[in-house]
Amino acid sequence: MSKTLSYAALNAKSALVPFVFDRRTLQATDVLIDILYCGVCHSDIHQVRNEWGNSQFPMVPGHEIVGRVKQVGSAVQAFKAGDVVGVGCMVDACRTCPDCLDNLEQFCNHPTFTYNSDDLKFGGRTQGGYSSQIVVEQHFVLRISEKLELAAAAPLLCAGITTYSPLRHWQVKAGDKVGIVGLGGLGHMGVKFAHAMGAEVVLFTTSAAKVNDAKRLGAHAVVISKDPAAMQAHLASFDFILNTVAAPHDLDAYTSLLKRDGVLCLVGVPDQPHPSPSVGNLIFKRRSIVGSLIGGIQETQEMLDFCAEHNIVSDIELIPIQQINTAYERVLKSDVQYRFVIDMASLNDADGG
Amino acid sequence: MSKTLSYAALNAKSALVPFVFDRRTLQATDVLIDILYCGVCHSDIHQVRNEWGNSQFPMVPGHEIVGRVKQVGSAVQAFKAGDVVGVGCMVDACRTCPDCLDNLEQFCNHPTFTYNSDDLKFGGRTQGGYSSQIVVEQHFVLRISEKLELAAAAPLLCAGITTYSPLRHWQVKAGDKVGIVGLGGLGHMGVKFAHAMGAEVVLFTTSAAKVNDAKRLGAHAVVISKDPAAMQAHLASFDFILNTVAAPHDLDAYTSLLKRDGVLCLVGVPDQPHPSPSVGNLIFKRRSIVGSLIGGIQETQEMLDFCAEHNIVSDIELIPIQQINTAYERVLKSDVQYRFVIDMASLNDADGG
Repeated sequence: MSKTLSYAALNAKSALVPFVFDRRTLQATDVLIDILYCGVCHSDIHQVRNEWGNSQFPMVPGHEIVGRVKQVGSAVQAFKAGDVVGVGCMVDACRTCPDCLDNLEQFCNHPTFTYNSDDLKFGGRTQGGYSSQIVVEQHFVLRISEKLELAAAAPLLCAGITTYSPLRHWQVKAGDKVGIVGLGGLGHMGVKFAHAMGAEVVLFTTSAAKVNDAKRLGAHAVVISKDPAAMQAHLASFDFILNTVAAPHDLDAYTSLLKRDGVLCLVGVPDQPHPSPSVGNLIFKRRSIVGSLIGGIQETQEMLDFCAEHNIVSDIELIPIQQINTAYERVLKSDVQYRFVIDMASLNDADGG
Repeated sequence: MSKTLSYAALNAKSALVPFVFDRRTLQATDVLIDILYCGVCHSDIHQVRNEWGNSQFPMVPGHEIVGRVKQVGSAVQAFKAGDVVGVGCMVDACRTCPDCLDNLEQFCNHPTFTYNSDDLKFGGRTQGGYSSQIVVEQHFVLRISEKLELAAAAPLLCAGITTYSPLRHWQVKAGDKVGIVGLGGLGHMGVKFAHAMGAEVVLFTTSAAKVNDAKRLGAHAVVISKDPAAMQAHLASFDFILNTVAAPHDLDAYTSLLKRDGVLCLVGVPDQPHPSPSVGNLIFKRRSIVGSLIGGIQETQEMLDFCAEHNIVSDIELIPIQQINTAYERVLKSDVQYRFVIDMASLNDADGG
């Protein structure tokens, strides 16, 4: 076991504070990773504040991890000390169910999440990436090209795969007309991916202030979703719309923009239901409303390789860990372009300087 | 033009009554059909009573038509006098849009429905199958095998294709586990088709009285949907569920029964919204909620050929036209097994005898 520096939530009400805990001893198929960067996901805040009701404390959040391999177990051949690697939302799964065997571990009935999760194999609870190091079974360790800006690669491990996976699964291809709803941590990655896949990308936002930035990120057009005439101009024209907005809103506004056989994909769970979507909108053009959840390990590696090929990373604001509580407040106000990433070297600083 | 006997609604409030009108003169690409049988669809009642708000009167309903060709236009080669043919929900479409060119005329922006529809080519309104004859452009005329019981084949033209098309489009195959929700005119056809495609078929009904009949029709199991334990036993096990119930109900009860990547297909438009379906149910197994609308002409012919091959027809109650108003009342009470079909020979009877 090795002492690990971190920032943790000690309960659902207090700010994150410095915290020291033990990582488990390296097993034969494990990889020990020195963490360089960790992205800040909105779900970190939900869990730190126990908004999903399943939190246990102390909790070290963080599942957008980039680091460098420090040591590998005796049976590990795919990684060696010095390799740049990533860890996403999962650190284990049953590995035997149909979902796992199909390389879709995210749908396993017993995945081990990177933090705030029972560690079914080693006992206790998992602790995440706001920490100096992590020990992960090799199947759940991902290779990251050193060609990428490593701090900005961290959000690929959650925001990246969450948007890449549905675009791939529903076979978005060059020439397709693709909508992305919302320009936050997820949405801005969706714009970049859909653009790189050759789609005609339309970004939907409620904020006129985001128009220029959306175009810089790769959107061919931007529609202010509060403008009925602007929405009407795109009726029945989209192959696929990726909706990253979790707040309850009118889904019919988007299903009506789909072509025959078009797909509206939701990746956010609202805390209150959306207004009930129109069944007629589905029937009269054979449209679909679907959901998608992160991605499997194999597809996450494919996504990281795609990013290396197309030089895609997240737009980020790099912060020292000492600013994490302020960063959370800014995330809640959507005041970040487009993801906070913690520079984990700051863990050793007394004052974050 | 030729004088045509029929039963028509003269307004939204009165019973159907005998009515005489003119069919259009036969054109070069038209087929004149002596109508033998016409099925009674619930949508006939909605339109006769103007419940969709788009009704014009007088209206002759009926879009599940089986008849015998009396005469063909000079350019018609595919049909000849004496052939047994069918006509479904559509008698024309634009024939030039992408949907029409993909043989999916049901999604054309300007289809001509069989009744209560503007006739864009010939003017006036179309009139349906509760009548002695009909003139239809040949592309919308379907071949029906004389091996089938012809009266019982009539409901194939709407109830049949409405259930066959989604089972085919979402590629139900031998060994799949398929749910059918509701055992009415649509549901009982869904059971027959899914069974003939080799699926394991589970029928969901609120009525214990339907269990034996569902099994006779081809269901391998029947679940009383009001029984939570019975529903729970099928969690996350279905490839595809065809939901024929239009009344507002809890869709989550069915999405939760789908496997990863499973599809819940709705074919009925509720008059009030269903409770808003759970987004989490979609995301955590990548499930879909979709809609489907009748089927294109090519697929309707494929369905009729499939029925001839597998000897599939509807279970029906054959009535004389004079009983149509009583039949409507029974449809509204779901008191029919499973489709009324009008014997159009009765049009010439004074008393329906």
